Amino acid sequence: MRVLGVDPGLTRCGVGVVEGVAGRPLTMVGVGVVRTPADADIGHRLVAIEQGIEQWLDEHKPEYVAVERVFSQHNVRTVMGTAQASAIAMLCATRRGLPVALHTPSEVKAAVTGNGRADKAQIGAMVTRLLRLDARPKPADAADALALAICHIWRAPAVNRLQQAQAAHRQAQTLARKATR
Amino acid sequence: MRVLGVDPGLTRCGVGVVEGVAGRPLTMVGVGVVRTPADADIGHRLVAIEQGIEQWLDEHKPEYVAVERVFSQHNVRTVMGTAQASAIAMLCATRRGLPVALHTPSEVKAAVTGNGRADKAQIGAMVTRLLRLDARPKPADAADALALAICHIWRAPAVNRLQQAQAAHRQAQTLARKATR
Repeated sequence: MRVLGVDPGLTRCGVGVVEGVAGRPLTMVGVGVVRTPADADIGHRLVAIEQGIEQWLDEHKPEYVAVERVFSQHNVRTVMGTAQASAIAMLCATRRGLPVALHTPSEVKAAVTGNGRADKAQIGAMVTRLLRLDARPKPADAADALALAICHIWRAPAVNRLQQAQAAHRQAQTLARKATR
Repeated sequence: MRVLGVDPGLTRCGVGVVEGVAGRPLTMVGVGVVRTPADADIGHRLVAIEQGIEQWLDEHKPEYVAVERVFSQHNVRTVMGTAQASAIAMLCATRRGLPVALHTPSEVKAAVTGNGRADKAQIGAMVTRLLRLDARPKPADAADALALAICHIWRAPAVNRLQQAQAAHRQAQTLARKATR
């Protein structure tokens, strides 16, 4: 499976494409950052992020898109920008019919380092090792995007089983509701 | 001037189009709500909001789009959804080259009721009066969208003067920098 990981942000939106399956060595297909100028107005920044993400989707044709799930952070201003950039990434993927998965920062850290509270350096080191790269991807947002893609590939079997169980549960509920009418 | 006001939200995104100029009676061109199902996944909800906003832009051809500025609220989950829906509205407008303005809830309340802490009922009552409607627009999100559009029309002269002053200041700074090189 080929996954585009997106570490959303208005100033730097990390993007990384990884190909592989759980249990086999993974390959980096591409990595980069979509940047928008901090002094541009928000509408133009969002349009630039849309164009950047579209370009990555066109060029690397991922089958899945994994986006970092935005949580409350200390800085509310940053949360807004992150939420807005993530909305654009999810919009672009869904418009093309690509499944979007959200992973929390601690899920990503736990997946690639075994420690849900790992620091940036540790994530960068593990991404470099897992993808057999010559140097650590920079900036950190680019490494984080690759970590998201790796996390998605490794978690995919478990997530699929969970989704199947949830779908079966919903179907059972619907049948039960119909039966009691 | 014709303004589309957007009160952003994932479940209910209020939209209202108002035509007029400051100091003259205003006219409501249209009002409604773009809804997305709470149980749909976020990507599909964002695509539905994009389609809804595009339809309003196509149909009513506003010259300006006024979006509520999202602030920290008590419920972080709500803030995220609001920020994401507002990103889609700003994206759609900017892609068409329409100027986007952000107004805070208290600016809107102060503009239409004279009180920055007015409640929903007061805003609904004033919107009904100012647009000479037969009944109060429902739900509250629809009335809020009209209030945003009214606020934008009334604040436009002041905002334009401010933007002109800022542009002049930036130009003066650039000239000063060039002069000292």
